Amino acid sequence: MKKLLKDSRKKIGQVPGSLIYVGEKKPDGVKLTLTSYAPGLYKQEVLDKFDQITEAMELDHKTWINSDGLKPEIIGKIGTHFDVHPLTQEDILNTMHRPKTEDHDKYIFVVVKMLSYDSAKETIKVEHLSLILGKNFLITFQEDVIDEFENLRESIKQNKGRIQELGTDYLGYRILDLIIDNYFSVMESFGDRIEDLEDELLDKPTEETLQKLYKLKGDMILIRRAVWPLREAISSLDKLDSDIIAKNTHPFLRDLYDHIIQIIDTTENYREMVAGMMDIYLSSVSNRLNEIMKILTIISTIFIPLNFIAGVYGMNFNTDISPYNMPELNWFFGYPAVLLIMFTVGILLLYFFRKKKWL
Amino acid sequence: MKKLLKDSRKKIGQVPGSLIYVGEKKPDGVKLTLTSYAPGLYKQEVLDKFDQITEAMELDHKTWINSDGLKPEIIGKIGTHFDVHPLTQEDILNTMHRPKTEDHDKYIFVVVKMLSYDSAKETIKVEHLSLILGKNFLITFQEDVIDEFENLRESIKQNKGRIQELGTDYLGYRILDLIIDNYFSVMESFGDRIEDLEDELLDKPTEETLQKLYKLKGDMILIRRAVWPLREAISSLDKLDSDIIAKNTHPFLRDLYDHIIQIIDTTENYREMVAGMMDIYLSSVSNRLNEIMKILTIISTIFIPLNFIAGVYGMNFNTDISPYNMPELNWFFGYPAVLLIMFTVGILLLYFFRKKKWL
Amino acid sequence: MKKLLKDSRKKIGQVPGSLIYVGEKKPDGVKLTLTSYAPGLYKQEVLDKFDQITEAMELDHKTWINSDGLKPEIIGKIGTHFDVHPLTQEDILNTMHRPKTEDHDKYIFVVVKMLSYDSAKETIKVEHLSLILGKNFLITFQEDVIDEFENLRESIKQNKGRIQELGTDYLGYRILDLIIDNYFSVMESFGDRIEDLEDELLDKPTEETLQKLYKLKGDMILIRRAVWPLREAISSLDKLDSDIIAKNTHPFLRDLYDHIIQIIDTTENYREMVAGMMDIYLSSVSNRLNEIMKILTIISTIFIPLNFIAGVYGMNFNTDISPYNMPELNWFFGYPAVLLIMFTVGILLLYFFRKKKWL
Amino acid sequence: MKKLLKDSRKKIGQVPGSLIYVGEKKPDGVKLTLTSYAPGLYKQEVLDKFDQITEAMELDHKTWINSDGLKPEIIGKIGTHFDVHPLTQEDILNTMHRPKTEDHDKYIFVVVKMLSYDSAKETIKVEHLSLILGKNFLITFQEDVIDEFENLRESIKQNKGRIQELGTDYLGYRILDLIIDNYFSVMESFGDRIEDLEDELLDKPTEETLQKLYKLKGDMILIRRAVWPLREAISSLDKLDSDIIAKNTHPFLRDLYDHIIQIIDTTENYREMVAGMMDIYLSSVSNRLNEIMKILTIISTIFIPLNFIAGVYGMNFNTDISPYNMPELNWFFGYPAVLLIMFTVGILLLYFFRKKKWL
Amino acid sequence: MKKLLKDSRKKIGQVPGSLIYVGEKKPDGVKLTLTSYAPGLYKQEVLDKFDQITEAMELDHKTWINSDGLKPEIIGKIGTHFDVHPLTQEDILNTMHRPKTEDHDKYIFVVVKMLSYDSAKETIKVEHLSLILGKNFLITFQEDVIDEFENLRESIKQNKGRIQELGTDYLGYRILDLIIDNYFSVMESFGDRIEDLEDELLDKPTEETLQKLYKLKGDMILIRRAVWPLREAISSLDKLDSDIIAKNTHPFLRDLYDHIIQIIDTTENYREMVAGMMDIYLSSVSNRLNEIMKILTIISTIFIPLNFIAGVYGMNFNTDISPYNMPELNWFFGYPAVLLIMFTVGILLLYFFRKKKWL
Repeated sequence: MKKLLKDSRKKIGQVPGSLIYVGEKKPDGVKLTLTSYAPGLYKQEVLDKFDQITEAMELDHKTWINSDGLKPEIIGKIGTHFDVHPLTQEDILNTMHRPKTEDHDKYIFVVVKMLSYDSAKETIKVEHLSLILGKNFLITFQEDVIDEFENLRESIKQNKGRIQELGTDYLGYRILDLIIDNYFSVMESFGDRIEDLEDELLDKPTEETLQKLYKLKGDMILIRRAVWPLREAISSLDKLDSDIIAKNTHPFLRDLYDHIIQIIDTTENYREMVAGMMDIYLSSVSNRLNEIMKILTIISTIFIPLNFIAGVYGMNFNTDISPYNMPELNWFFGYPAVLLIMFTVGILLLYFFRKKKWL
Repeated sequence: MKKLLKDSRKKIGQVPGSLIYVGEKKPDGVKLTLTSYAPGLYKQEVLDKFDQITEAMELDHKTWINSDGLKPEIIGKIGTHFDVHPLTQEDILNTMHRPKTEDHDKYIFVVVKMLSYDSAKETIKVEHLSLILGKNFLITFQEDVIDEFENLRESIKQNKGRIQELGTDYLGYRILDLIIDNYFSVMESFGDRIEDLEDELLDKPTEETLQKLYKLKGDMILIRRAVWPLREAISSLDKLDSDIIAKNTHPFLRDLYDHIIQIIDTTENYREMVAGMMDIYLSSVSNRLNEIMKILTIISTIFIPLNFIAGVYGMNFNTDISPYNMPELNWFFGYPAVLLIMFTVGILLLYFFRKKKWL
Repeated sequence: MKKLLKDSRKKIGQVPGSLIYVGEKKPDGVKLTLTSYAPGLYKQEVLDKFDQITEAMELDHKTWINSDGLKPEIIGKIGTHFDVHPLTQEDILNTMHRPKTEDHDKYIFVVVKMLSYDSAKETIKVEHLSLILGKNFLITFQEDVIDEFENLRESIKQNKGRIQELGTDYLGYRILDLIIDNYFSVMESFGDRIEDLEDELLDKPTEETLQKLYKLKGDMILIRRAVWPLREAISSLDKLDSDIIAKNTHPFLRDLYDHIIQIIDTTENYREMVAGMMDIYLSSVSNRLNEIMKILTIISTIFIPLNFIAGVYGMNFNTDISPYNMPELNWFFGYPAVLLIMFTVGILLLYFFRKKKWL
Repeated sequence: MKKLLKDSRKKIGQVPGSLIYVGEKKPDGVKLTLTSYAPGLYKQEVLDKFDQITEAMELDHKTWINSDGLKPEIIGKIGTHFDVHPLTQEDILNTMHRPKTEDHDKYIFVVVKMLSYDSAKETIKVEHLSLILGKNFLITFQEDVIDEFENLRESIKQNKGRIQELGTDYLGYRILDLIIDNYFSVMESFGDRIEDLEDELLDKPTEETLQKLYKLKGDMILIRRAVWPLREAISSLDKLDSDIIAKNTHPFLRDLYDHIIQIIDTTENYREMVAGMMDIYLSSVSNRLNEIMKILTIISTIFIPLNFIAGVYGMNFNTDISPYNMPELNWFFGYPAVLLIMFTVGILLLYFFRKKKWL
Repeated sequence: MKKLLKDSRKKIGQVPGSLIYVGEKKPDGVKLTLTSYAPGLYKQEVLDKFDQITEAMELDHKTWINSDGLKPEIIGKIGTHFDVHPLTQEDILNTMHRPKTEDHDKYIFVVVKMLSYDSAKETIKVEHLSLILGKNFLITFQEDVIDEFENLRESIKQNKGRIQELGTDYLGYRILDLIIDNYFSVMESFGDRIEDLEDELLDKPTEETLQKLYKLKGDMILIRRAVWPLREAISSLDKLDSDIIAKNTHPFLRDLYDHIIQIIDTTENYREMVAGMMDIYLSSVSNRLNEIMKILTIISTIFIPLNFIAGVYGMNFNTDISPYNMPELNWFFGYPAVLLIMFTVGILLLYFFRKKKWL
């Protein structure tokens, strides 16, 4: 089971707004990327101190600051510079926080989860992402140091879709869109896993199948935790009456909302399928075992009356009266031969059971 | 399992509004059908280039363009000509998109799913259909190249139900009505399958029954994915405050809504039935196996005390004292006869088990 | 399984508002009953042509036309005479339609289902009833030719509850009240069936019990299909802002609504009970079988060690040394006596198993 | 199963508002208690005719009439005197009616259920109670002739909590409060039963445990039927904009509402527990039986190879060659001794099985 | 099972607002702590009589009175002094009361539950906490005499987070925040228990596992009872239009609300997991037992045909004809040797079964 809560104990009794990192310990390194653009203009710098950022920013450009990795000091400095509420700063550091949208007049704060499926480890990775969207700036905080937005910067540079002419609200939308596109990819690989497991289930279910099923269920919970509150978050982002979000950005947000609804739909359908698979598993396993028991019982049942007859007559036929009466008893190798037959029958049965995978 | 998501990976990182076909690959051929009509007038042309369409259109007629098959270029051209939002164009090509209604002032955009049941393959076919409904025009996009609307065009030609005098909004309603009538047909065949399976279940359930049941559940998910969002779509189409939809078309839309509610109702009832059938299956299978085990165990149980008695006395009666004491032991063919009896009993039991279908 | 959808295929592609009968084929005969009344006045005529009706109607009387049996032609004529919307006419003929209330300004259209329990056949009969309620007239359409409203006409004749002085809206209420009173009766007989089945379940469940349970579930679906949408229908009838319904009729409609809520409540409680019974059934059946298996296994288990001892010593005691050593072996009828004992034991066991109902 | 509906058949076709008693037949006796009070004043009379009541009433006092037992005639007279709507009168007599609140301008009509737990019979008793709350009067109708409000009258007499100075609305609240306090008591005894059953379940579940569980479920349904609609009833009583209820009575009603919410909460939690217990029961029973089967099978399995060895060699050792070779066969009491041993083993096994409670 | 209701019987028939302690009997001792503060000022006194409190209070300071332990007399005195409604006083003493927020104009009344996990006893402790929040004062009532707020007082003393400058509404928030932080801690330990149980389940489930699972379910109910109504309580606290709560306190309340939503989310996810574990348990147990039965049956099945062969030939080979024909029968220690072999085989099988943990 992936932990659903972590580190919450160290926050007990702290003054609200304290900057404490909540989550699995990540490497301390932080990479700050400053991207500023305007129609026909594009500048990009990678820095590691926030002071250098403030120097490099130019007021008439649109500014996007991306922090790969979460460091309390840097968040504190950014917070002071852009006048970010202490509780917002606390939420940026709390990687266990659920997706939400908050309107703070001077900026809009959005928390989302990035999902990606690592097919090698067969695990779903959940990453915390916070966006602070202001009138002419966008600040994003990623939990991991690995940069996920290189392609998007390339798009800005090449002014694909006239992005340089549009505001930072559109850039924020593009980031959210990128994340939700990744959800589709995760859901697809999830669908593949369900399909594989389905075949396995109807074919030959094992203990391992059950564990895979159990893992699927756990991953399902991770996905739902990321997706369901996101619906609310994007919906309230679209309904926000704020001049930070331009009028022509709203159709894009509604499109985003549509996509989330589709993902939720699919999630719920997969959930139902997985629930049904548990039943199939139980019935399959119990059927296979019953099948075995039936065959074995039939074998016993056939031999029991035979045994009875043998018990009544089997061994006392008068060998003197007739040569047909148990001549084997008078054979020279009679006893060893019967021992051999018994041994052979035993081995054959063992072989048969093992071949049928009953042992 | 029918795939619920497809091809979503190729959209990651694309500029929103990019025209990319999402879905199973279809033959490239596209057939454009232009139908224009006015009271007493009817014209129909089948073309394969959009430019020919624009030439053939006449402004004072009501125009219906139907595209069988989805081709990005043609959708792009239509989009430019009728001023269709790029996100709408994207949704037309995304055959995985869920049903919805969107009001874009100049046009209303409706996405629905066409369902049809192929009784030969026992599969439900889902087809993506988009409608763009403008003041005097209607554009429909079908996923398949097969034309489904020939009868409707015949109706227009013959002016059945005075359709020539009514606007394209009524035509749009007629198309939606046709699609929903098909839902009823699909639901009926679904009901037939449930009925058949029910009989099979209570009669003699097999492994195959389980797989049919599982398939039913899967089809149920496909139907619900098509129907549930449609309710929302038609309801908001009816509530739309747009001058594209004439006042006297609304009763028809409400009637449509009624039909969808009935289909949803039926779907939910079927769903409940199918859920109950899983229980019946499990109980039936387990009952049958238990029944077999019981009979076999009874046979064993009867012979065990007999065996015990035979074990105590069975073979040592003094044949000298009385001719009634096991005379068989002194018969000439005693031993072969007993072997034969044992062989016969074994064969009879095997035959009995096989006749009872236990083997 | 009662079919939940029928005949829907023949409506595909028809012009909306086409008068096509949907449902099981009923005898063609139609009986039209005209009842007109006013304070101190009462007139009743049974006719078979609609033209005779129009002649017999008097404008200053309140008019109730009841059609037993649904005939497209007659509905068409009534529709034309009273200016009824084509879609309303279509719904009157669609016996699969769910309950609803529609306000068409000039008239209110109500669809309900009549339920009755046929205790002989143990089936619930569902009948489609449509009401068209106008300012001074009421038209009712029953699916069956059997008249269910004779008592009500008698009430009007005798002016019970001053019904002659009240409008046709009150008459409509009385009809709905009659139908819902019948629901109570159906629910009561349903409760009796549950009670009977409960006793059977805890006493001695059989395969037949399962089928009864399954039937109960099916009937439950029929009842819920009739009752749930009715709640909505009566509620919107009460909330309707129409001058067709007099102010002092509303308390009666609210009372009706109360009754429906009580029926829904009871339905949901019964549903829960039936769901619980399935569990009890499964556990009871499995318990009984396990009980049998246990007894049989115990019998085997007792004899197995005895058999072993007999196998070691049983038959070779030296009869020469002592008269106590297996004297039976030297008896004259020893062998036949033992055969007889074995035969008797076998028969007794069979008798015992059959008496315990294990075979 | 407690009947959820009764006597409904006799109401079919009756004029709405007819005074017909619906429920189990109660003794005809009715006891009318008139309590009138004002600051510093208290008068109480027990009468059996309504006419005596009207004489005894004084206009400037607050009047509480309580009817123990429901008699159509008396309700009719009260109805006429206080101008009570016929449908209200009908509801007073319908003991199957669900809790509700109705505002009739001149009076407020409240229906509730009194619950009490009879620990001797282990049944929950449900009693129908109706309140008619007017500007200066309160009329209560109890289903049973047993008076439940003696303590409350004592409170009025002693003017506890300054009740004499407050209106009849406060008195009505006090009656409802008394009833809901009883709910807590019923829920507590319900909790005790759950606790007892839990111990029984984890300890040694029997058939009887299942029946108790089933009874618990049935009682749960009775409680929920009483409590859930009561929430709605009290909530709408609190929200009522009527001058019958004084402003300072509202906090008390809200407190009442709080209590009902707590009872509903507890009910739902108990429900969940009971549902879980069914699973525990099934698993416990099946575990115990499996355990038995396992032990028995192990016994068989140990003896089977031994039997085989005995079968090969057991009885033919040459007693002439060695005194160690089966000397028992030549003992004088060999055979009887072995019979005795076998008998003893059989008895011991039976005793063992019985002690383990397997038989 | 933790009792969900207690002592409710003693409240039946009491005048509403009576001060009666409801809950487990606690030691009578009560500790009153008076904390008063203002910017730059801090005073703290521990007293045991309320009269001393009133003397010690100063009007221009912010006053926080904390009562560890609930004593009706003291609550009565506080109630009179601060003009607290009798029903509020009653709720303070009712430790079974569910969380809620009530606005009484002069003060806001909040009921919450404190949760803590005692890892030694493996139980969740639920404590009742009431807050009365006035314009310049805060009164808190804890069920236990153990003080939980020492750290918070230290914070006030040191003016951490400028708490001395903020109102008592912020102090109230801090107390609620502390409590909810504790919820996270309880949830984390709950998650740990689930994880442990999961491993146990998939590894080797025992009867004890089931009881742990059952306990988890019970604790889950306790947590949900505390958390779900709290959501409502905090939400309505935030929405309250009262001048007692300062404008800049609202963001903190919304943050609190966020935290509660996260806890509810996690609760529901855990609930789902626990429900799934029940299935896994049942399937695991049944699988293990079936596995055992299979092995045992296979052993029997192998020996049954061997037994049959031995029964036919086993013991009568003519030892005179050949030295290979059962020479063991003529050995001097043949019989004791066979007895020894049989004894050894029996012991080995017992040892094998015990090692496999089947016995």
